[in-house]
Amino acid sequence: MTASPFAALVDWGTSNLRIWLVDSQGAVLGERQSPEGMGGLDKAAYPAVLEGHLSALGAPSDLPVVVAGMAGARTGWREAPYVETPAPLVGLFQHAVQPEGVSRPVYILPGVCQREGGAYDVMRGEETQLAGALEQGLDNALFCLPGTHSKWALVEDGQARRFSTVMTGELFNLISRQSILRLSVPEDGDAEADPEIFDAAVAQALEPGFALTSVLFSIRAEGLLAPDAKINPAARLSGLLIGAEIAAIRDDLQRHGKAYLIGTGKLTRLYARAITKAGGEPVMLDGGLLVRRGLLASALSLFDHEFKD
Amino acid sequence: MTASPFAALVDWGTSNLRIWLVDSQGAVLGERQSPEGMGGLDKAAYPAVLEGHLSALGAPSDLPVVVAGMAGARTGWREAPYVETPAPLVGLFQHAVQPEGVSRPVYILPGVCQREGGAYDVMRGEETQLAGALEQGLDNALFCLPGTHSKWALVEDGQARRFSTVMTGELFNLISRQSILRLSVPEDGDAEADPEIFDAAVAQALEPGFALTSVLFSIRAEGLLAPDAKINPAARLSGLLIGAEIAAIRDDLQRHGKAYLIGTGKLTRLYARAITKAGGEPVMLDGGLLVRRGLLASALSLFDHEFKD
Repeated sequence: MTASPFAALVDWGTSNLRIWLVDSQGAVLGERQSPEGMGGLDKAAYPAVLEGHLSALGAPSDLPVVVAGMAGARTGWREAPYVETPAPLVGLFQHAVQPEGVSRPVYILPGVCQREGGAYDVMRGEETQLAGALEQGLDNALFCLPGTHSKWALVEDGQARRFSTVMTGELFNLISRQSILRLSVPEDGDAEADPEIFDAAVAQALEPGFALTSVLFSIRAEGLLAPDAKINPAARLSGLLIGAEIAAIRDDLQRHGKAYLIGTGKLTRLYARAITKAGGEPVMLDGGLLVRRGLLASALSLFDHEFKD
Repeated sequence: MTASPFAALVDWGTSNLRIWLVDSQGAVLGERQSPEGMGGLDKAAYPAVLEGHLSALGAPSDLPVVVAGMAGARTGWREAPYVETPAPLVGLFQHAVQPEGVSRPVYILPGVCQREGGAYDVMRGEETQLAGALEQGLDNALFCLPGTHSKWALVEDGQARRFSTVMTGELFNLISRQSILRLSVPEDGDAEADPEIFDAAVAQALEPGFALTSVLFSIRAEGLLAPDAKINPAARLSGLLIGAEIAAIRDDLQRHGKAYLIGTGKLTRLYARAITKAGGEPVMLDGGLLVRRGLLASALSLFDHEFKD
């Protein structure tokens, strides 16, 4: 290593762990990834896992560490209680907790929760990506993070104002593989293969009064009644589900115009397509870069803060 | 047997089989039930299953038989092709088919399908219950048949005009047992135990712009964020799903006022509660009686028809 590391930044999710050594400008000096996510770790295992990776990266033994994600869950390393909406994204570091059992300084950042109006919701990790987006000037914006459980988040004046978790990916898997529709949706069904079918399903879901559960069975019945029609049940199911999700945030989308998409791959491309269909403009962001920027911002605040004490 | 049987009436569903021997007035002279539904039978097995039950009932060897339900599916005994909406319910018998391999006259009634406006749908068995309701004067009415897949059917001037299958029961099972919400919904969760929670969820689902998939995760988050609150996740999930289903037919419900509910037990009681909440008036009907009446009406038409030939 030529430059001296300022901190180790860790994105510790349910199924993955990513570590970056960075200098104080955020330049990456070393990087590791591993499947040692929160989902597979006992509380007591965290220090050794972390030290193993830091040692492999040649990190000094007193290098401070900032962690975001599920490591801060109740069932993770040490609970970092949620900060409630509206949550100032630059202030997350103030609520970081320090786990026991490590000799170096380690800070685990909190997640964000929402109780307002009974719209209960939680996030852990995504708030640090939003903090990273803030670093690039996105302090009033609508964000979408596609995934098994996608998140939509509205950031206003640098605060996580409102967000919602939508189980679209999980529902797609359950419905296409385990419901009666499994008889219609092939296992290798490709929702991207027939964009016009996907688009038509999104358009249907965006119609006023659309009722998802009352439309799903038509996918099965169409296969029985029109076996020769050009249908792609995976594209139709995916379009109905993603369309229903976007219908729910359409007011925000119309107000902001742009939706910043944090993700990669096929699913994110389908969301971009559906957002366009709903009259919005999707803008792709790199999630790995964002979480690193958010972690660095917290690290700079934390260690600045420490030095001042 | 004192009276002489006119016909054997058979409701042959996916998982059950019911047979009644009746006189020409519909009086039941004998009755059998069995789990030998279409789902577990090879095509070749039907004649022996039927003859076994008829013999146990002491039916004459030339007694004619009328069958409704999944025995008429492509994967059943012999396909009775669907009659398309608008389907005159008194005319179903005209499309009955006669299977091979039996020495007595056997007629399998058709199901009804819908292609109109791309709202593809199918029913087999329910149309005969609707025909039975016609016999008691319900020739302009809205029907709801709760079940794993519920059906809503609009009968106008004695025709099955429009209907839809809603996968509410199946979705409740998949979501409560297999999605992330399984961590919140106890296996023995009783949706009837907290009527006010069920009602509130129905009311939420009836609000304009309600988006089911964007609300589901709040059930999990509420359990995390308000662990001491009085919540009943089963009641809430059930209310959201049934409410979303009723929201989709609310125009029909407002026009007709009454919704005739064909079913029994807890699920039907929940539908009745939700229909009331939506401003409708639920009226319970006995499904077994209706299918028998519908079968008898077809039997009378068929054998009358035969005699005239």
